[in-house]
Amino acid sequence: MPEVRPGDDLAALLAAACPADLGDDDVLVVASKVVSKAEGCVVKLAGVSVGEEARRIAADAPGGKDPRLVQLVLDEAAEVLRAERGVIIVETRHGFVCANAGIDVSNLPGDDVALLLPEDPDASARALRDGIEAACGVRPAVVITDSFGRAWRMGQVDVAIGAAGLLVVDDWRGRSDAHGRELRATVAAVGDAVASMADLARSKDAGEPAVLVRGLSRYVTPEDGPGAAALRRPRPDDLFR
Amino acid sequence: MPEVRPGDDLAALLAAACPADLGDDDVLVVASKVVSKAEGCVVKLAGVSVGEEARRIAADAPGGKDPRLVQLVLDEAAEVLRAERGVIIVETRHGFVCANAGIDVSNLPGDDVALLLPEDPDASARALRDGIEAACGVRPAVVITDSFGRAWRMGQVDVAIGAAGLLVVDDWRGRSDAHGRELRATVAAVGDAVASMADLARSKDAGEPAVLVRGLSRYVTPEDGPGAAALRRPRPDDLFR
Repeated sequence: MPEVRPGDDLAALLAAACPADLGDDDVLVVASKVVSKAEGCVVKLAGVSVGEEARRIAADAPGGKDPRLVQLVLDEAAEVLRAERGVIIVETRHGFVCANAGIDVSNLPGDDVALLLPEDPDASARALRDGIEAACGVRPAVVITDSFGRAWRMGQVDVAIGAAGLLVVDDWRGRSDAHGRELRATVAAVGDAVASMADLARSKDAGEPAVLVRGLSRYVTPEDGPGAAALRRPRPDDLFR
Repeated sequence: MPEVRPGDDLAALLAAACPADLGDDDVLVVASKVVSKAEGCVVKLAGVSVGEEARRIAADAPGGKDPRLVQLVLDEAAEVLRAERGVIIVETRHGFVCANAGIDVSNLPGDDVALLLPEDPDASARALRDGIEAACGVRPAVVITDSFGRAWRMGQVDVAIGAAGLLVVDDWRGRSDAHGRELRATVAAVGDAVASMADLARSKDAGEPAVLVRGLSRYVTPEDGPGAAALRRPRPDDLFR
């Protein structure tokens, strides 16, 4: 894949990078960063006006934090869950709970630019799926991923923030196990597992924004489906904020 | 794999089920359930004495919850983080934050038995690695997995609760990206990604307790290493309890 720039036709670039035998039952996993770049979700830090709250949070961070980045995080946040020791966990306006509202300042040309998450990642996934079909006549599932931390686990894993054509949640409740017993509380977050798997296949610094996953046709659907929105825990069920 | 019973030599059973070309750079991912069975981490519910707290929590659960199971969860807990609406989130005595202390009542023969997590999953992983080497002269990495929920995401994903010979956390902080910028906060939870990936390769009701993962030799180490303990966020860094 070439370096992606705002306004680029990402679907066409992805289609061109896919193997000739791309199939309708394949899953194309795309890093949100490249989607944000193509969609122009880019903000110059120089143009950010920093408010009081952002200044205070930035000053509290050990080692300091760019107050303009903090302001962007607050701008993208529907709710701030925690802002301690330089860690800012928010619910984004999309409904994702993550650090720094998913804003990325690495791997960008120049020092003064921040990448926001795509405006509507499920819509982005649907558009990519349509665009790939238009480009090459094949309609794989599309998953858009980002790296999220976890409350009680070290490190980040990639999760699905957008999806089209993938059964992102596989609900086994009510089905029976091998002994005829009802399985309890077994709801597999397939979309997130696919995202994590794809991340293992690429190197973070190698400029590989997409991974093609095969062998998951049992989770691929002709319709686009509810998208990765189905992986967001609804606010009333949240025990931890 | 045959059905595993307490006292079985799980390493020998796994070695026998592995392909002839098993390599030192392979990763063998084993469901904790089968480790618990082999190690005899099995409790008959009939023998559990239910205390006041367990009775109260069980009564509060919509639709009811077996108070004996609740008692076992409390027995396995170092701390109860939440007990609401039938959901019990604890830190186990091992240090895992998860629902029901990882106790499993599905897929078991008979109605009245609970499977606890292995006593020391990292030690179990090391013992399996040694045992597989003894059985077939090859020393793959071993990861022991369990399904955990997430605070803000729907469904469960498999995570690594035990490991030997796998770099479970790949720390990119301080390294540079493709543009020479320092990467921030990029610590990949490789062990958990491997666990999630393996779960995608098997069917929950098919009695497939182990998955062989190839192509991850860059994360496989000759020494057993710190194990999955390195994936547990230390208590002082926990912002959410």
